[in-house]
Amino acid sequence: MTVLAITGGVGGSKLALGLSKLLSPDRLIIAVNTGDDFTHLGLRVCPDLDTVMYTLAGMENPETGWGVACDTWETMSALEALGGPTWFRLGNRDIATHLERTRRLAAGEPLSKVTAHLARSCGVKHRIVPASDQNISTVVETPLGQLPFQKYFVELGCKPTVQGFQFVGAENARPAPALQTCFDKGEIEAVIICPSNPYVSIAPIIAIPGIRAFLRKPEVPVVSVSPIVGGKALKGPTAKIMRELGIQPSSLAIAEHYSDIVSKLFIDVADENQVEQIASLGVETTVSRTVMTTIADKTRLARDVLVQAGINIDQID
Amino acid sequence: MTVLAITGGVGGSKLALGLSKLLSPDRLIIAVNTGDDFTHLGLRVCPDLDTVMYTLAGMENPETGWGVACDTWETMSALEALGGPTWFRLGNRDIATHLERTRRLAAGEPLSKVTAHLARSCGVKHRIVPASDQNISTVVETPLGQLPFQKYFVELGCKPTVQGFQFVGAENARPAPALQTCFDKGEIEAVIICPSNPYVSIAPIIAIPGIRAFLRKPEVPVVSVSPIVGGKALKGPTAKIMRELGIQPSSLAIAEHYSDIVSKLFIDVADENQVEQIASLGVETTVSRTVMTTIADKTRLARDVLVQAGINIDQID
Repeated sequence: MTVLAITGGVGGSKLALGLSKLLSPDRLIIAVNTGDDFTHLGLRVCPDLDTVMYTLAGMENPETGWGVACDTWETMSALEALGGPTWFRLGNRDIATHLERTRRLAAGEPLSKVTAHLARSCGVKHRIVPASDQNISTVVETPLGQLPFQKYFVELGCKPTVQGFQFVGAENARPAPALQTCFDKGEIEAVIICPSNPYVSIAPIIAIPGIRAFLRKPEVPVVSVSPIVGGKALKGPTAKIMRELGIQPSSLAIAEHYSDIVSKLFIDVADENQVEQIASLGVETTVSRTVMTTIADKTRLARDVLVQAGINIDQID
Repeated sequence: MTVLAITGGVGGSKLALGLSKLLSPDRLIIAVNTGDDFTHLGLRVCPDLDTVMYTLAGMENPETGWGVACDTWETMSALEALGGPTWFRLGNRDIATHLERTRRLAAGEPLSKVTAHLARSCGVKHRIVPASDQNISTVVETPLGQLPFQKYFVELGCKPTVQGFQFVGAENARPAPALQTCFDKGEIEAVIICPSNPYVSIAPIIAIPGIRAFLRKPEVPVVSVSPIVGGKALKGPTAKIMRELGIQPSSLAIAEHYSDIVSKLFIDVADENQVEQIASLGVETTVSRTVMTTIADKTRLARDVLVQAGINIDQID
């Protein structure tokens, strides 16, 4: 039996790392958002897949939340000298990941196979899969018009007001084959929705019909961790986006957002006063410390989440 | 009035550099072989264009003959760790050139416009143009079958026996627009065929009908420098290829090869004994020192070639 973790980039990958410390590789499959993926300078870049992979490989850059630790920058400097676009920063080592991904995709390999190869090459034993092998592109609706996600997120620094999101391709996308196999064989005993941005990181995954349908099945517990603590997002634009969408940023709002799929929600001690309101939505809460700074934080929260999901923890070195 | 230099990579770019020291930017246009170009790891790589550009920019790596001097290699190392193909070595700074080229080509810019931008960004004032904006792919016929050029040249180290070459796309290719404009306006007062490999570096250029027709016009002097010295090529597989094609490597054979287009051929003092035989082909010879090691060698040979072509030399700092 397997635990399915659903995640975006930085925030979610912390819990995914914690889960990987408690479950053996055959008991965890991590499905990652691909709505942020884009082709840049001819390279296929998958930011969330890479963040999860680098994090599980211990290669992540904790200062940026993206890229490889201690990477070097000669290509970016030379690109700047050539007048090329440098708003999306690509370190020398990180570029190798994109080159090899682009090469394999061009040779006809599906993204899930490419991802498995890259992760294995980085020493990752747990299964990291794109939510789908079909392209999904998150488009941000703003007063400036529809913006490709990375233009909004990185080039424009999330400044434009968000009016909505579209996940182009999601409706016709199928779950990645390894994920579909888990569904078909009834192997998933619990789903953990990691504390990534629900609107831009988790939503493109849930927008895939095969995944949405599975999450709505009542027999599999779906546990999530609120990415909002004390009305703020720990990192990234989640709170800003919520306000722009007319939603007061709170764990209660997260519970409302997820109420049709999530059975249990972890909220931070800072939000303890919202327990009763969340309960009224039919969502059970666990109050915990959800801010993950150290590896011990990540493992502890992952352990608590697994316990609440009714999952036995493996003995791993 | 303008001098047209026709060149491949390493050997030819030495003379092209010499020419650039003697002619102002408006009096020199350098048309470069694109038959070696290929798409690798999703990047469009144009080895000869880059060698000429880096050489004129003073950025070339004299030890390898390709790439940028003092480049660093983190991307290649990381690519190797990912199990990617590393037989074609790409330094970090060099990769920036390919990324920006690939980006601009994907945005719809023709190769000549991309090349002009890259060269200008590197500080090159003289015009470097691809022989054509249409793709030309050199294919090597060998006992192993037809091989893409870089597979033969780099991956297999020129080991397979050459039975012939095809320049796929050349027959339907048009000269690059800047070159065609020079032709149309009658601006070319002389053509210099640089001492690159006649069979793989110069032949794909001459295979373009619009260039071939121009070179055959009797009114424009076409001067070349033999890449064979004392029966050997200074660098690269020219002599090996000639033997495999059933041709005894010599300056005489080069003169025969070029006899329908070249009016004057520079040969090295080591080949002085071939002057009379070459004269019998209707090709005038100048015996000189054609081995270019120092910048003084390059400028001196360029000066001698220009004098023989009847070209006035500019006063350049």
